[in-house]
Amino acid sequence: MAILAVGSVAYDSVRTPFGSADNVLGGAATYFSVAASYFSDVAIVAVVGEDFREQDLDVLRGRGIDIDGLERAKGKTFRWAGEYSFALNDCKTLDTQLNVFGEFKPKLVEKHRKAEFVFLGNISPDLQREVVRQVERPRLVACDTMNFWIEKHFKSLLETLKLVDVLIINDAETRQLANEPNLYRAGRKILSWGPKALVIKRGEYGAIMLKDNSIFGVPAFPLEDVFDPTGAGDSFAGGFMGFLAGSGDLSEAAIRKAIIFGSVMASFNVEKFSLERLKELTFPEIQKRFKEFKQLTHFEDIE
Amino acid sequence: MAILAVGSVAYDSVRTPFGSADNVLGGAATYFSVAASYFSDVAIVAVVGEDFREQDLDVLRGRGIDIDGLERAKGKTFRWAGEYSFALNDCKTLDTQLNVFGEFKPKLVEKHRKAEFVFLGNISPDLQREVVRQVERPRLVACDTMNFWIEKHFKSLLETLKLVDVLIINDAETRQLANEPNLYRAGRKILSWGPKALVIKRGEYGAIMLKDNSIFGVPAFPLEDVFDPTGAGDSFAGGFMGFLAGSGDLSEAAIRKAIIFGSVMASFNVEKFSLERLKELTFPEIQKRFKEFKQLTHFEDIE
Repeated sequence: MAILAVGSVAYDSVRTPFGSADNVLGGAATYFSVAASYFSDVAIVAVVGEDFREQDLDVLRGRGIDIDGLERAKGKTFRWAGEYSFALNDCKTLDTQLNVFGEFKPKLVEKHRKAEFVFLGNISPDLQREVVRQVERPRLVACDTMNFWIEKHFKSLLETLKLVDVLIINDAETRQLANEPNLYRAGRKILSWGPKALVIKRGEYGAIMLKDNSIFGVPAFPLEDVFDPTGAGDSFAGGFMGFLAGSGDLSEAAIRKAIIFGSVMASFNVEKFSLERLKELTFPEIQKRFKEFKQLTHFEDIE
Repeated sequence: MAILAVGSVAYDSVRTPFGSADNVLGGAATYFSVAASYFSDVAIVAVVGEDFREQDLDVLRGRGIDIDGLERAKGKTFRWAGEYSFALNDCKTLDTQLNVFGEFKPKLVEKHRKAEFVFLGNISPDLQREVVRQVERPRLVACDTMNFWIEKHFKSLLETLKLVDVLIINDAETRQLANEPNLYRAGRKILSWGPKALVIKRGEYGAIMLKDNSIFGVPAFPLEDVFDPTGAGDSFAGGFMGFLAGSGDLSEAAIRKAIIFGSVMASFNVEKFSLERLKELTFPEIQKRFKEFKQLTHFEDIE
């Protein structure tokens, strides 16, 4: 089993200028694992409530995702409601109901302890460490976080970062975490805390990867129809980790390709609500968009 | 004479979180022509007042810029004052005094009418057309504009766009001009009005070029010290046009390289106040940063 992903599986209610969707399948672990499933085996560790629909399990099963670590608890599934304005980079959270997710204590089954790649979705840094400690010999640990944990659990987050190889966050989180307005100074500070690479997601502006000795940047895919940005960051992480796990290659060249595959998966995800676009992709479509990224960004070097 | 640049030559007072500078050399035509001067011959058409300092003329002369079209009129030089917060993409204009620039009527001398490349800085679209009409056979006309002209002189601006090959504006101006929130839809609309290419400057997020049959995107150069963003857009335009005029090549490959050279010049410009960094560059420094852009953005294609 290649990738173990821990995080939320949720029901989302989303409003955008282009329409709305109520109680649709969402959650960080969902978007991540469906995106990663095009490249690698992936297992999900999460909790859902008694109200979780069979058809949504089928979305995960349909992508060959190992759901043996998907616990079903008494109570309701985690719910999130949000609204996007025309500036799709901004999202206003309307409602959050943790429900069964509030008591989530990930306990890995035997086979999941052998995972080589671990993705720690946006959960408490205490729980993130709990998960890493249960994995026998992880080859690569990637992690997401958010403003809440940075503000309220900073010290615990620093402890988690010591165990993390790749931190995948957005630019506001980067600046907030380092308490530094310049993105590159902020990034350098964060790298000194443990992660070997920092991947900064910038929504419609693309992504940047910082390492001690290199920086890589790519614009976002030019889309004339962005329908729903929900899950773009987790789809990015899924494409990124999926490619690395699938290829087993952690060279600089492979990591750069992984950033592009992450960007590809994020770009598909925002084309429809929920997992609608992400779950129906074909690998040739993914490859085609990768090549379009090459055309988008290529220029000849000078002598 | 290769490039003719029309626009403001100004005295700026700038405050940033990192310091301030009062009554320093600025203006769109100044930044543009100094940046372009590293690649090509360039002549400036502008007006200054009686207070314009000899040492500032020397900055232009020192870069070999043809200042025969720099009129000296009775009164004071155009003045602009602005303030940047830590979010250096946002600038608050504190004061604008048009002074002699308010009566500016560009009249080209004979040799300037033979210009092959014309850059229309951010002046009234009526005046921009006046300038183009005086040039005998321009090979490439590029143009900048701003929210004021879009709001107050939209029809005149549309007339100007019919004469323009490359429109170089920022992303807010793109959306405002087309009255369309999606950047790529907005761009496509603008291309239908005349320009063959639209170059969208996105500050710290880089630049995008849209043409009917291609899109090119590049992130901005990662800088740990951004000192003063004033003039970045005009420095970009100067590097862009300078490279095209200097090489005489208008192929897709050349235009993509030109976007990189524009990004290079903008990245140098923001490292110091006023023209301080831009005027002291060497061509090897420029080439080195171009190659750093290649390293920043390169990834291997898939089979």
